[in-house]
Amino acid sequence: MADNTHVGSTVSGLMAEIAGIGTDASRGGYSRPVYSSAELELREWFTAAATDRSLDVECDRNGIIWAWWNPTGAPLSDAVVTGSHLDSVPGGGAFDGPLGVASALNAVDILRARNIEPARPLALAVFPEEEGSRYGLACLGSQLMTGAVSVERAMGLTDADGTTFAELAARNGLDPAHMGRDDERLSQIGCFVELHVEQGRGLIDHGSPVAIGSSILGHGRWLLSFSGQGNHAGTTLMNDRSDPMVAAAATVIDVRRLGKLVDGARATVGKLDPVPGGSNVIASRVDVWLDVRHSDDGVVAALVADIAAAAREHAAAEGCTMTLTEASMSPRVDFDPALRGRLSSILPDAPILPTGAGHDAGVLKDRVPTAMLFVRNPTGISHSPEEYVEDPDADRGGDALATVLAELLG
Amino acid sequence: MADNTHVGSTVSGLMAEIAGIGTDASRGGYSRPVYSSAELELREWFTAAATDRSLDVECDRNGIIWAWWNPTGAPLSDAVVTGSHLDSVPGGGAFDGPLGVASALNAVDILRARNIEPARPLALAVFPEEEGSRYGLACLGSQLMTGAVSVERAMGLTDADGTTFAELAARNGLDPAHMGRDDERLSQIGCFVELHVEQGRGLIDHGSPVAIGSSILGHGRWLLSFSGQGNHAGTTLMNDRSDPMVAAAATVIDVRRLGKLVDGARATVGKLDPVPGGSNVIASRVDVWLDVRHSDDGVVAALVADIAAAAREHAAAEGCTMTLTEASMSPRVDFDPALRGRLSSILPDAPILPTGAGHDAGVLKDRVPTAMLFVRNPTGISHSPEEYVEDPDADRGGDALATVLAELLG
Repeated sequence: MADNTHVGSTVSGLMAEIAGIGTDASRGGYSRPVYSSAELELREWFTAAATDRSLDVECDRNGIIWAWWNPTGAPLSDAVVTGSHLDSVPGGGAFDGPLGVASALNAVDILRARNIEPARPLALAVFPEEEGSRYGLACLGSQLMTGAVSVERAMGLTDADGTTFAELAARNGLDPAHMGRDDERLSQIGCFVELHVEQGRGLIDHGSPVAIGSSILGHGRWLLSFSGQGNHAGTTLMNDRSDPMVAAAATVIDVRRLGKLVDGARATVGKLDPVPGGSNVIASRVDVWLDVRHSDDGVVAALVADIAAAAREHAAAEGCTMTLTEASMSPRVDFDPALRGRLSSILPDAPILPTGAGHDAGVLKDRVPTAMLFVRNPTGISHSPEEYVEDPDADRGGDALATVLAELLG
Repeated sequence: MADNTHVGSTVSGLMAEIAGIGTDASRGGYSRPVYSSAELELREWFTAAATDRSLDVECDRNGIIWAWWNPTGAPLSDAVVTGSHLDSVPGGGAFDGPLGVASALNAVDILRARNIEPARPLALAVFPEEEGSRYGLACLGSQLMTGAVSVERAMGLTDADGTTFAELAARNGLDPAHMGRDDERLSQIGCFVELHVEQGRGLIDHGSPVAIGSSILGHGRWLLSFSGQGNHAGTTLMNDRSDPMVAAAATVIDVRRLGKLVDGARATVGKLDPVPGGSNVIASRVDVWLDVRHSDDGVVAALVADIAAAAREHAAAEGCTMTLTEASMSPRVDFDPALRGRLSSILPDAPILPTGAGHDAGVLKDRVPTAMLFVRNPTGISHSPEEYVEDPDADRGGDALATVLAELLG
C-alpha cells in the first residue's frame, strides 16, 4: 500500500530535498519569511510529502497546515500532534523549524515501518510566522489559534513593505474575518510534541544527540523609538544637533552593560532603523528593537525598565525624546510536567534542558499539554548560516521522535 | 511670441507646481531618488516647462538635461549655464535642488520681460543623482561628465535593490557604453552659476535673502563594516557574544566625541544597516556610513583615521573585525575668485558664505569657472521636511539670479 513507500526515508534525506529553497546569497543561509515564495514552496513541499504518505492535509482558517493520520476513522479528538514551522529569520540556518517538520514526516514512515497503527489520531502541524521576522510578532499562527493575540491586532500588523497581515492572509486564500481563536481545533489536540534544533551550546557537552525541553525563558520585544531633529550632515554644526542616532548608540551600549549585570539574562539589539536613513542626513528618528529574556519574568520587566530609563536619559542629553512600546511579552513557560516525565521515561538518556528561544509549543502550552525535543547543534549557533545538525544526529532525532510518538499513540 | 507667455512666472509659483510630486508619507517631506517615478515626473515637468519657453531641450549621454536659449544661433560655446538637481535625499525638503531649477526657468522669463536678448548662449541644466541617496556617490552626473568618477566604478554601483547604475541608466534610455567624461560638452560651458537653498543658519542673522558662495568644505563618505558572529538573541549567553552592533554603537559615540574635538568639523552617522537585521538575531555584520567634513582636507583625513582607529579597538574588544572603505572624498572647493568678484559687484549687498554641503558646482569647478547663490532658509534646517524658503525670498532669489545672468550674458 502507498503508506509504505516512504519507509526508507531519513530526516537528513528530507532536509536535503529542501536545501535549495530560500537561500540568501547576500546574507548567507536562508531567508524564508512567512508567505514569501520560499516559504510557500516549502509549504507545497510539505503538503505533497504528506499527501504522498496518504495523510489528510488541510489548511485551517489561521493558515496552519494539518496532515492527519487517523486509521480508525474516529472523530478527531485527543490527537497526538507533532510539527514545527517552515519560516526563518533573515539569513537564518537550515534547521530552525524545518528539522521538526522533516522529523514529523519521517516519524510517520518509521511508525509504519514498525507496523505501528495509531489507536488515536496523529497530526503533523506546520505553523506560520513562528519567527515573527515579517510582522514582528513571533508565533503568530499559534497565537491566533489560542487567542493569545487579538485578531484586530494581528490583522493590523504591517510588514516592511506596508502590507498588513490581513492583506497578506487574504492574498494567500485566508479570510481575515474568520481568523482567530479556534477552540474546536484546540479541542482535537491531546498533546503537542515539537522537535527543534538546539539553539545554544546546551547539548555540546552532554554527549547526547537529543534533549527534552524543560522550560522557555520569559522573553519579549520592545521598540525604543528616539526622535530628534533631522538635518543636513554637512551644514549643521556639532553643537546644534539633536541626533537620535547618538542617543540610540548610547542605549545599545547600555543594553549590553545592563544585560551583563543580570545573571542569566539576554539583552540584544539586532535591528536598528534610522529614518530617513541617508548617509548625508542627520536622522530625525531611530527605531531600536530590543529583545530581552530571562527565566524570571519579573527580571525581564525590571531589566527593560532599567534600559528604558537609561535610554530616556541619553535621549534627553541629546535634546531628543524616547518612546517605549512593548511589541510582545511571552511569560516563562514550563512544559507540562506529566508529559515531560513520560518523555523522560521513553528516552531515559536524554538530558533535560531549558531554552532561551520561543516556540509554538510555548504558546500552545496554555491550552494543551506540550513538550519539546532538542537535537544537538555542534556549533552552538542559531539564527545564522552557521546553525548546524550533523546528518546522523538529525536521523537520531527523527528516531527519538518516532519512539515518543509510538508510546503516546499506544 | 511664445517666448513671452511666462513673463509673469515666479519661483514660488513654479515650486507650487511640483509640490505634490514625490511626497513621502512615512518619512515626511519628499523622497525623490534619481530615476524614481517622482524624479522622472519632475524631469518631465522641467522638459515641458523649458519646451514651453521655446528652449531647445536635450538629455546628454550622462543623463544631464540641457535647455538652450541661443537666439544668435551661433555654435554652442562660452555659454552661461545655470541649474541644479531634482533628486532628493529620503524624506528631504522641497527646496534642495528644485529651487535652483525653478529659479533658472524663472530667470529666462525675467530676462525676456526685461527684453534682454543673450549675446552668448544660455543653458539651464538639471543634474541627476546629486544627493547620491540611491547609489551612495553624490554628484554622480557631474562626476561622470568631468571624469571625476570612472565609468567602470559608476556603472558597477548598486542601489538597495541590487540594481546597478548601468542597468538603471539603460532602463532610462542611456547607453552605458557611451557614458563618462564629456569634454565636448564641457567646452561649451563658459561658466556655471548654481542657485541653492542655504542649508544652515548662515543667512538667518545677515538680514539678506541671498548670499554668494565662497567655498565648499572638504567632505567624504566612508563605510565602516563591522563583522562578528551572527547568533540567536535568546540562546546565546552575554559572555559568548561577538556582536558587531555593540562595536558599531561604541563607534557612533566616538564619531560624535571626536568630531566635537575638532573645531569646524562635522562628523555624522545617518545610515546604519545591521545584517541580517532581525530583532531576535545577533547581527553578523553592521555597516556604518560615516560622513565627515572640514574646510581643511587634511583635517578630514586625520579625523577619519582617528575614528577608524577607535572603531578597530571597539571591534577587537568585541571579538569582531572592522574594514574601512572610502566611498568618496571631495576636496575643499574654492569657487572661481574672478566670477565670485563679478557676482559681488552685481549683488553688492549679498554676504559671502561658505557651505558644508556638496554641489555639482563644486565638481564642475575643476573644469569651468563656477559660482553659487544661496537663498535664505529661516529654519536653518536642510535634508529634512523642515527645510524652508519663504515665497518672497524664493522670488528675490530668482530675481538675483536673473540679474546675475543678465550681466554675464551681456
